[in-house]
Amino acid sequence: MFAKRLRRLAERQGAAGIDCVALMPGPNLRYLTGMTLPMSERPIVAFFALDRRPAVLLPTLEKGRAEGMAGDDVDFFSYADEEGPDCAFARVVEALELDGKRVSVEYRHMRVLELRSLEVVAPRARFASMEETFPELRIIKDRHEVGAICDAIAKTEQALHALISRPLIGSTERQIANRLMQEMMKAGAERVGFIIVVAGPNGADPHAGPSGRPVQEGELMTVDCGTVHDGYPSDITRTFAFGEVNDELRRIYEVVGRSNAAGRDAARPGVASQDVDRAARKVIEDAGYGEYFIHRTGHGLGLEGHEPPYIVEGNERRLEPGMVLTIEPGIYIPGVGGARIEDDVVITEDGLECLTTFPRELMVVS
Amino acid sequence: MFAKRLRRLAERQGAAGIDCVALMPGPNLRYLTGMTLPMSERPIVAFFALDRRPAVLLPTLEKGRAEGMAGDDVDFFSYADEEGPDCAFARVVEALELDGKRVSVEYRHMRVLELRSLEVVAPRARFASMEETFPELRIIKDRHEVGAICDAIAKTEQALHALISRPLIGSTERQIANRLMQEMMKAGAERVGFIIVVAGPNGADPHAGPSGRPVQEGELMTVDCGTVHDGYPSDITRTFAFGEVNDELRRIYEVVGRSNAAGRDAARPGVASQDVDRAARKVIEDAGYGEYFIHRTGHGLGLEGHEPPYIVEGNERRLEPGMVLTIEPGIYIPGVGGARIEDDVVITEDGLECLTTFPRELMVVS
Repeated sequence: MFAKRLRRLAERQGAAGIDCVALMPGPNLRYLTGMTLPMSERPIVAFFALDRRPAVLLPTLEKGRAEGMAGDDVDFFSYADEEGPDCAFARVVEALELDGKRVSVEYRHMRVLELRSLEVVAPRARFASMEETFPELRIIKDRHEVGAICDAIAKTEQALHALISRPLIGSTERQIANRLMQEMMKAGAERVGFIIVVAGPNGADPHAGPSGRPVQEGELMTVDCGTVHDGYPSDITRTFAFGEVNDELRRIYEVVGRSNAAGRDAARPGVASQDVDRAARKVIEDAGYGEYFIHRTGHGLGLEGHEPPYIVEGNERRLEPGMVLTIEPGIYIPGVGGARIEDDVVITEDGLECLTTFPRELMVVS
Repeated sequence: MFAKRLRRLAERQGAAGIDCVALMPGPNLRYLTGMTLPMSERPIVAFFALDRRPAVLLPTLEKGRAEGMAGDDVDFFSYADEEGPDCAFARVVEALELDGKRVSVEYRHMRVLELRSLEVVAPRARFASMEETFPELRIIKDRHEVGAICDAIAKTEQALHALISRPLIGSTERQIANRLMQEMMKAGAERVGFIIVVAGPNGADPHAGPSGRPVQEGELMTVDCGTVHDGYPSDITRTFAFGEVNDELRRIYEVVGRSNAAGRDAARPGVASQDVDRAARKVIEDAGYGEYFIHRTGHGLGLEGHEPPYIVEGNERRLEPGMVLTIEPGIYIPGVGGARIEDDVVITEDGLECLTTFPRELMVVS
């Protein structure tokens, strides 16, 4: 699998005129090699130069494990804590003859630290943006990847069901988040991805962290969460009602539900990403809440929780079978509250398959 | 507190000839303003220009919460998902007149993404390394900071005690890590920081992730973990024995224990960081295991889990009262196993206070 992915990268490098791809620990490196290495104050950079063996610059204390992951196919350039990485950068640049070459780096992952270290030892190299030269390296998911996302979804939904099966009113958002985390682990989640729990007026902030405020009767609670399986995440949002909620909150929820459905109806092969956003947004705008839908409708889902294709106005990228993305419209009214309903879907040959199965009707919990 | 910290930054900026400090979401921004903002594909940068109000560039969907954190003291330059950040970068650079100025950026946090965005709109600006211009912004901890670290330590130690009070032999490293995570939450930890559990031969890799391998009688198990309180972490390592371990493992543990004690004995005001490393390392070298102690002796502990002062050969920075650091020597023998004992200490006027209280004698568990 990795050999095939590396070959495909090399083909694209040739076509794009990129002599070397330099990757940080993270999704691209994992995708291409299976190596999961940590990002820390000790730089780690993997180099994929055309017609060369892959090379990894890393601190000595990570070398043993990296060798275990990479087998014999990789050359290592390691440095001890007391010497620091400068010499290793010089050695790898010399070995791969990178000075003067075109090197593609991840603008969204490489830090100024690594860029400057490379610029010092390869002053004539030109650094292109990986996101621009290879924007779609991981955009089409294979069966294994979709399977991993489904596993992550199953654990998350099991945990969500368990969470709402017990009384929550009076608990704080933070306590509810902790309980959900425990339910995720009980469900056998390999790793907890993230958990957002916001209720009542806090629900008006789509990305707020769980607070110490107790949730109360008559409020909506939005739970946005995911687990990770084999590196692949789930990303699910459901909004629940604590007992009876007022007409405005009920209406917001109903509009968001129709918007979510409109987004899912619109997404199929050949449709531009922005048209999925427009379809979902139109429902909310027509209902008079347009100004309160303050984010895009969704994003691709893969080794990164947020990745292309972004479902946003201006993105003309057409959907293709194998893309996995979220549909997650929301309405957020300051001082009042908010609601969001988020599904994970995979584009198929003739439409889409919704991977999340948790009910979308407003569930009343206690 | 924040006003005072900002004033101190401005004084240092003046002295260093830095017109503006541009910070990413993370420890420095939190330290100076209390703002905790997310790092994502949507850039967020905070600007502290001399004699100007702080300015924050951020996506619209983070603005409400950021305003809540910052009060009225900050100007916001926000961008919607559909327009992207380019115009906001141009506006903030124009408003603060940054082009041609000296701007200090965090080499270890700013990504190439934000650097290039700034270079486009401020082509004549010069970008200095924050780590070089203000390396010690957070190196001396105040009472509040040490208190938060102590809280994180208390929760972690409570969880560790609970973990070993139940049988573990036969469980996998991953199951043990999950159980520890649950114990941390039961102990009331605000957030789990990180958990490393390695046993038997896996213990020879100081940074391995917990594996699916069951732990067995006769092995050493190293647990390196921490929780986070109010942004401040604990960082504790203890090594346990499952039943009787052989003489070599017992000897390794004993040597590491003496090395840890030697490091703690050496650390006091006026002593160079590298001399603490030397003191701890000498014990291990004298015992014939020098080649198996493959990392530095410790690191500073604060809003970042690893920060200055680094306790490493070559670092001549002298310790001062108020510095908080780890002392964590280890021995790692491939194919055999490893041991590490890590304490968190604060330097006092006349020596140090060890903040971790968990016993250091080899504890036999089942």
